[in-house]
Amino acid sequence: MLETDLLSLNIPATTKPRVVIIGGGFGGINLAKKLDNEKFQVVMFDRQNYHGFWPLLYQVATAGLEPDAIAEPLRKMFGSDDYKDFHFRLVKVTGINPTSKTVSTLIGDLPYDYLVVATGTKSNYFGNDQIKKYSFPLKQIPDALNLRSQLLQSFEQASMTKNEEIRQSLLNIVIVGAGPTGVELAGALAEMRRHVLPTDYPGLDFSQMNIYLVEGLDRVLPPMSPEASAKTKKYLEEMDISIKLNTLVESYDGNVATLKGGEQIRTHTLVWAAGVAGALIDGLPAESVERGRILVNQFNQVLGFSDIFAIGDIAFMKSDEFPKGHPGVAQPAIQQGQLLSKNLNRLIRNEQLEPFKYFDKGSLAIIGRSRAVADLPGNRHISGFFAWLIWLFVHITYLVGFRNKLVVLSNWTYRLFTYERGTRLIIRPFVRKGDRQRRKFFDQYNTES
Amino acid sequence: MLETDLLSLNIPATTKPRVVIIGGGFGGINLAKKLDNEKFQVVMFDRQNYHGFWPLLYQVATAGLEPDAIAEPLRKMFGSDDYKDFHFRLVKVTGINPTSKTVSTLIGDLPYDYLVVATGTKSNYFGNDQIKKYSFPLKQIPDALNLRSQLLQSFEQASMTKNEEIRQSLLNIVIVGAGPTGVELAGALAEMRRHVLPTDYPGLDFSQMNIYLVEGLDRVLPPMSPEASAKTKKYLEEMDISIKLNTLVESYDGNVATLKGGEQIRTHTLVWAAGVAGALIDGLPAESVERGRILVNQFNQVLGFSDIFAIGDIAFMKSDEFPKGHPGVAQPAIQQGQLLSKNLNRLIRNEQLEPFKYFDKGSLAIIGRSRAVADLPGNRHISGFFAWLIWLFVHITYLVGFRNKLVVLSNWTYRLFTYERGTRLIIRPFVRKGDRQRRKFFDQYNTES
Repeated sequence: MLETDLLSLNIPATTKPRVVIIGGGFGGINLAKKLDNEKFQVVMFDRQNYHGFWPLLYQVATAGLEPDAIAEPLRKMFGSDDYKDFHFRLVKVTGINPTSKTVSTLIGDLPYDYLVVATGTKSNYFGNDQIKKYSFPLKQIPDALNLRSQLLQSFEQASMTKNEEIRQSLLNIVIVGAGPTGVELAGALAEMRRHVLPTDYPGLDFSQMNIYLVEGLDRVLPPMSPEASAKTKKYLEEMDISIKLNTLVESYDGNVATLKGGEQIRTHTLVWAAGVAGALIDGLPAESVERGRILVNQFNQVLGFSDIFAIGDIAFMKSDEFPKGHPGVAQPAIQQGQLLSKNLNRLIRNEQLEPFKYFDKGSLAIIGRSRAVADLPGNRHISGFFAWLIWLFVHITYLVGFRNKLVVLSNWTYRLFTYERGTRLIIRPFVRKGDRQRRKFFDQYNTES
Repeated sequence: MLETDLLSLNIPATTKPRVVIIGGGFGGINLAKKLDNEKFQVVMFDRQNYHGFWPLLYQVATAGLEPDAIAEPLRKMFGSDDYKDFHFRLVKVTGINPTSKTVSTLIGDLPYDYLVVATGTKSNYFGNDQIKKYSFPLKQIPDALNLRSQLLQSFEQASMTKNEEIRQSLLNIVIVGAGPTGVELAGALAEMRRHVLPTDYPGLDFSQMNIYLVEGLDRVLPPMSPEASAKTKKYLEEMDISIKLNTLVESYDGNVATLKGGEQIRTHTLVWAAGVAGALIDGLPAESVERGRILVNQFNQVLGFSDIFAIGDIAFMKSDEFPKGHPGVAQPAIQQGQLLSKNLNRLIRNEQLEPFKYFDKGSLAIIGRSRAVADLPGNRHISGFFAWLIWLFVHITYLVGFRNKLVVLSNWTYRLFTYERGTRLIIRPFVRKGDRQRRKFFDQYNTES
């Protein structure tokens, strides 16, 4: 019955300029929040009905937080009277048509006056379909829930085998990519291994649990300062995480990861945090795209257009200071979204646009309790307990603004301080695509209701 | 690689009597909590790794709570030093062999000295495979998450169609079965319809949203008193819920529910809360089973056995006072589990067993804010604000004991008082088995990471 041709976008006609925003990430919501609904009609498309605070996604994967602590429904976010002409549609955008000035979706086209591409990134497997098939990505909430179930099920199975090789394979976790996601996940797993798992699984010897962190470059946390990298490496080693730098994973068949050079690691769980590519949408001319990202000028206008913008991770704004574009973190997206709201105001008044200037608030990464690193503005680098306090403060402040709910935070803070992980429920039996043997085993948990 | 023959139960050998408990529900955990690990080795099997507080499951389905608020990992529950000889295994039990005194699982057999069947119930579709295929059960956490996504996706789609018939079908919710689950779900949906959804979906007219509550018997809440039923009916009607008593659903094809008598309701969402059947396990003689439940004597011993017990919903203990057995709620299971721990102590000391005597603490149901009904001991019946306060008190008290976490409760209480539903995230694209058209539509949300 529910064929897509029975649906239509149902966006009310308007005399105001219509701003269409593709994506409800950091860029999209910060733009939409500031756009005056008296002057603009705002339409947002996303394939998910929530905005996620992705820097804490690893906490969902490691059973520290439930999804609602790091995600907020977009309709709730824009449910107040300030957004009387804001229209969210849960639908996939299939293309952009600059000539007709329309956006195509699965259920129809919509004309725009201004179009903002804020689609962010997706995992990049660099063409390796086998790794794509068998590895666990960590980009979205379902990924985190899948990884959580996979980890917990692996421990359950490890406690049920007498086969040493199988047990070791279940207890080996390989994380590919030592960027913030990989490092923070490795740290959280090391804390679980020390504080939570031995109590939960008294029959298992967790000194056998190995956490490998594999990185193709020559240091961990490559986007941060060399000082932060060095300190982070020290922390990770103190926490017994095996770091393999200058190392690429060549193949992974679901059982054995083969590293460049020939080393093999048997593992049932390989987390792919090694790379991202822009989530491009068809319809822009080839010359506006470079290295999978959309070329924009200093006003975030897509090369060759004055009414199409790209912000955040998908935007590639070359400058002398950032020849490779801005770092793929929340701040550039937030700041570009905020600036664009002002520039759209200027555009309709025919005023001069303000160029984007990135204000680097610094970078943070947490490795474990009392172990964090911070690159602060002014080329200052700190680490340890004080950096950890800053990390806590920044994330709690953000979540308070984001959720506006101190009670949720009390829960979170409590868990953070007690190592308590109440959410270690195996809710969805994870089945990897094409992994029939595993499916066969887990089918028993697909219990009938 | 992970064929089941590579796994084994790995239960340590013991000289103590071994108690094997099948099921970590109310009966199973209350027994296991009280069993002295100095005297008994305790083994618990379950296909889920958590114990759920199922009376609040409808809150997960209606986006009021996240799963971790109503479920607790079994390993965490039994992780303290009091349970040094407690062994949990996440595995499916396939049969009981009274002759060899062993339990069979997918990965091997285990000898028992005492066996306790505490498997509870599963949904009963009374042989109607079409309803089983297309309806939404509400028995387990994945059910609740599926139903939540289904409801929210229906509203999203309703806001995207101009076809009146389709929109009405998406906005019609049919709940089959007016027991506690059906009534509490209907009430929560009515509250959402009034307080949350109009803000979230300003483009939809929620006066078009119909909630049908269909019951085969002649009153709602049949397990409670006629007084409670009458009051509940009044509350439900005040909240604009369409009640159809003495009415059976004959068929449902995913689009149209046909009621006995011929009335048809177009709906995309039919919730099946109409019946349960015991979750039986193979191996007991036919004469120990009646109406899908296991016949037990007053010590919960299965008919014909002194070393096999059944407790909770799966147990059928006939008595003059309860000719149809005890009500299928938490209290009989809890009390039978607690009593059985004492009786097992008596058994190993060759003492006389104590017969089960059900202590009826009363029944409660919540229909909405300030609207609840209570049957109290001594044939007293109250309703309204005071009954609502009792409901709150009872559930908060239970959850405090259950979770031992006031912080989680603060969140919950806050939401309960503010109508705030932060968890309305569509996390898993729901696909009904065999529903290809729907799958086709929702495949777009299976976004790649």
